[in-house]
Amino acid sequence: MKFGIVARRDKKAALKLAYRVYDFLKVSGYDVCVDSETHRHLPEFQEEDVCPLEDFDVDFIIVIGGDGTILRVEHRTKKDIPILGINMGTLGFLTEVEPHEAFFALSKLLEGDYHLDERIKLRTYLNGRNIVPDALNEVAVLTGIPGKIIHLKYYIDGGLADEIRADGLIVSTPTGSTGYAMSVGGPFVDPRLDVMVIAPIAPIALSSRPMIVPSYSRIDIKNIALTREIILAIDGQFYTYLEPGTEITVRLSPRKAKFVRFTREVYPKYTMKIKRKF
Amino acid sequence: MKFGIVARRDKKAALKLAYRVYDFLKVSGYDVCVDSETHRHLPEFQEEDVCPLEDFDVDFIIVIGGDGTILRVEHRTKKDIPILGINMGTLGFLTEVEPHEAFFALSKLLEGDYHLDERIKLRTYLNGRNIVPDALNEVAVLTGIPGKIIHLKYYIDGGLADEIRADGLIVSTPTGSTGYAMSVGGPFVDPRLDVMVIAPIAPIALSSRPMIVPSYSRIDIKNIALTREIILAIDGQFYTYLEPGTEITVRLSPRKAKFVRFTREVYPKYTMKIKRKF
Amino acid sequence: MKFGIVARRDKKAALKLAYRVYDFLKVSGYDVCVDSETHRHLPEFQEEDVCPLEDFDVDFIIVIGGDGTILRVEHRTKKDIPILGINMGTLGFLTEVEPHEAFFALSKLLEGDYHLDERIKLRTYLNGRNIVPDALNEVAVLTGIPGKIIHLKYYIDGGLADEIRADGLIVSTPTGSTGYAMSVGGPFVDPRLDVMVIAPIAPIALSSRPMIVPSYSRIDIKNIALTREIILAIDGQFYTYLEPGTEITVRLSPRKAKFVRFTREVYPKYTMKIKRKF
Amino acid sequence: MKFGIVARRDKKAALKLAYRVYDFLKVSGYDVCVDSETHRHLPEFQEEDVCPLEDFDVDFIIVIGGDGTILRVEHRTKKDIPILGINMGTLGFLTEVEPHEAFFALSKLLEGDYHLDERIKLRTYLNGRNIVPDALNEVAVLTGIPGKIIHLKYYIDGGLADEIRADGLIVSTPTGSTGYAMSVGGPFVDPRLDVMVIAPIAPIALSSRPMIVPSYSRIDIKNIALTREIILAIDGQFYTYLEPGTEITVRLSPRKAKFVRFTREVYPKYTMKIKRKF
Repeated sequence: MKFGIVARRDKKAALKLAYRVYDFLKVSGYDVCVDSETHRHLPEFQEEDVCPLEDFDVDFIIVIGGDGTILRVEHRTKKDIPILGINMGTLGFLTEVEPHEAFFALSKLLEGDYHLDERIKLRTYLNGRNIVPDALNEVAVLTGIPGKIIHLKYYIDGGLADEIRADGLIVSTPTGSTGYAMSVGGPFVDPRLDVMVIAPIAPIALSSRPMIVPSYSRIDIKNIALTREIILAIDGQFYTYLEPGTEITVRLSPRKAKFVRFTREVYPKYTMKIKRKF
Repeated sequence: MKFGIVARRDKKAALKLAYRVYDFLKVSGYDVCVDSETHRHLPEFQEEDVCPLEDFDVDFIIVIGGDGTILRVEHRTKKDIPILGINMGTLGFLTEVEPHEAFFALSKLLEGDYHLDERIKLRTYLNGRNIVPDALNEVAVLTGIPGKIIHLKYYIDGGLADEIRADGLIVSTPTGSTGYAMSVGGPFVDPRLDVMVIAPIAPIALSSRPMIVPSYSRIDIKNIALTREIILAIDGQFYTYLEPGTEITVRLSPRKAKFVRFTREVYPKYTMKIKRKF
Repeated sequence: MKFGIVARRDKKAALKLAYRVYDFLKVSGYDVCVDSETHRHLPEFQEEDVCPLEDFDVDFIIVIGGDGTILRVEHRTKKDIPILGINMGTLGFLTEVEPHEAFFALSKLLEGDYHLDERIKLRTYLNGRNIVPDALNEVAVLTGIPGKIIHLKYYIDGGLADEIRADGLIVSTPTGSTGYAMSVGGPFVDPRLDVMVIAPIAPIALSSRPMIVPSYSRIDIKNIALTREIILAIDGQFYTYLEPGTEITVRLSPRKAKFVRFTREVYPKYTMKIKRKF
Repeated sequence: MKFGIVARRDKKAALKLAYRVYDFLKVSGYDVCVDSETHRHLPEFQEEDVCPLEDFDVDFIIVIGGDGTILRVEHRTKKDIPILGINMGTLGFLTEVEPHEAFFALSKLLEGDYHLDERIKLRTYLNGRNIVPDALNEVAVLTGIPGKIIHLKYYIDGGLADEIRADGLIVSTPTGSTGYAMSVGGPFVDPRLDVMVIAPIAPIALSSRPMIVPSYSRIDIKNIALTREIILAIDGQFYTYLEPGTEITVRLSPRKAKFVRFTREVYPKYTMKIKRKF
């Protein structure tokens, strides 16, 4: 069995815990691969064990950080490698254990006492081509000029679903439902569901509402006012400006995110975290 | 082939159209069964063709009315008989055609040129027993005294999902998502989905949010303040007061509602009706 | 100087603290009047010091309880007597001090080291006559049958403001803005303002919005569907069924609620309490 | 009496009507001043009657356009000149008459048969200095990178009102309450009121709520995460990037916007327009 290790780069404690995990796995005789950016922030790791995230070809990735670190791993890795998240962020909707449980969790993982929680991802096509990362949380189509509304039409499976004048439009997975989509009035979506949330951001029309659609739906988004600059933001991590007239399509990705879990509990695990958002 | 006919009782035009449909089907040689309440409001129907909704054993029911009339049919009939709804209400989320299309629609139905749109229903258990109608739209647990909040805990598949002080709690199907659930902030749910919407009514806590859960989930609702009277309302049609301490469970019903449709279109068919709600 | 004393009846600690306050004021030589219902729950008070709330003619009323107890005092007393609220409830938007500060607060009051925080109240006229208590929080016009919508038109200064199909309509003071009005989407209103919040409860139309209007406005509410029973609820304390066709008018009351305050602070005093609502 | 004329530049019909108004006033013997940008788009106006908006020193300005054109006039003129707005936009919350009523309205204006509707404006201070236009609608503090939240604290009269992680924060006048503030959940505010609406845009915390505060309040907004770029947007017209650490203060402006009105009606004049927003 081979392990990858990635830590949050801006938190000393995360880097230190990453090293302890690295040390424990090495001593236990496992092959370990350390993310080169993690290494850049903590040079103690042995040079020969370091490789870029993009080249990770391991059985599990141990991520020590918050949801942001996990999203970075998801965007960069090329295979759907199961992730064990150790929470060094704030709420940690994606991470599974707290730092003090790290080694207990590793033991359970090594013993095979876990299950994999698979989450859908969304793939974005720009004029029919996919050249951007898949979204684990959400694809957001945003005004290029903050405060200046954009005018969009969006279609679900070819039928016009709504025409909006708004700051933008979010297409979210159940995983992302507790994120940006919730900030604009979207519901909590049970992570066991294969659906998408479509939610406008600050729409002018008072009758615009979030929608829940099947994950097999095809969402086409058209920018009506062609002079307005538009930004595509994926998981709040990847950003790109779009040419006027770019056709945006969002569909279910063939890829999945896989998380090591030690319990199948959904309630109150996720709903109680919502209350603590700040 | 045998047909049932039900009309909205408080609208002359609906009763008249019902008679024309009845006449057309009789002349065409079909057996027809007219709902006794419809007959009570328009005595022209032949006595021997009249029977109570509860005894309807036909292949299709032609409903001339609004969504309320369809809900009445759903609550009373004992079999999952396909319904063709002719809209004599306001928006008509459930009805399929407008009055001027009635006979064209009947012809297509007789020719077999249609498909059936099956919708899930929710079954409510009170202390483990089901003695109330299934819900096509929603099950609402409401304060017995308007304006006096009730204190509820609700559990999804055994896990505590939320504890609320509110005017009530709604558990809705996708069909009901455009109704009461939407009035309290719930999203539009694509009718092709097998999910439930759980939405609190006027909750005190500002962090309470609607939730989308799988239709196979078991929802248990507990009334915490045992002195407060509670009402169970199903589809805004059936009402009953509940004894303090009654355990309420909502689950997917084995029954389905079946609607005759001439198109598989969802968008903009349903979303444009939302805009016209008043 | 003469004092009135009222305690929450269902909390032993509140009744005990009320007795200690009573004892302290008597020993200090002040005349004290104890609410008869408080006396009924703690008979230690001297019989001759007991009188009904309705007859209170004192300089200050010390209320030991929550906002509900203060609302009861406001509804029953006939004069605008300043209230010092000692919090024995949950959040205590109206109370000023916590139990451990009670005697320190009394000293400051006796020394004149305080100011009066005056809050507007709303008066309700039914067919032109005022026969119900003034509202410190809100006047709510509610469906008589929970879950069955009512159809209302409401007019501001004679002009039609909105026509709604909803569970009800709330007209709230700034004091009440953190209560029922907030549960249905109303904003926080600075208590220094002389305005009313008008907010529909679960309106069918998605474009209905809360409104902020001057306190000098006249609000007329008309029940359109005359067959539907309607309830008038004032401050969640006083309830009455209204005859179909009753004309409801809400206006600024000539009376005020007066609270003893030791600070003029609004922020974060009130806004932080909102976060802790549950 | 002297008149100014300003028209929407991108609409032929507006420019033509502006010329007819100009012609009518000239023929009637009045001095007229035509905005130089309007002239640039329709050169028929006499050169000697043209001057830049900034130099307008007239008794009334006739604006032919939508709310955007009126906002441009408000930002550029140096005196509080009464505006008569002829609607060539969409909803026209600020304009008073439709094009077909233009000359009838002018006659009434010339006869003195009107009143002035004065609206408050907000002044923004950056590190204590006012170098940006006053806001008639709203001051928005926005994330410089769409989709990346900013972390703000805001203080009302020196007290911490809320700490938010959000896309931004809006401080709106009653005039602006039907605009951006309403898109993020703010209420309708009666234009007769002297209050501000403070509303967060897509806040992470579910307990953040719009607030209504007195117009005499001082709002201080602090950017906590100093590395994040922030944009100041005034009335959706004026934009500027702010240096990290810039202290933003919003207060009532000494200036007012003045509109020529032929009726004092508020309801349903404004509330019905809200329903038609799209």
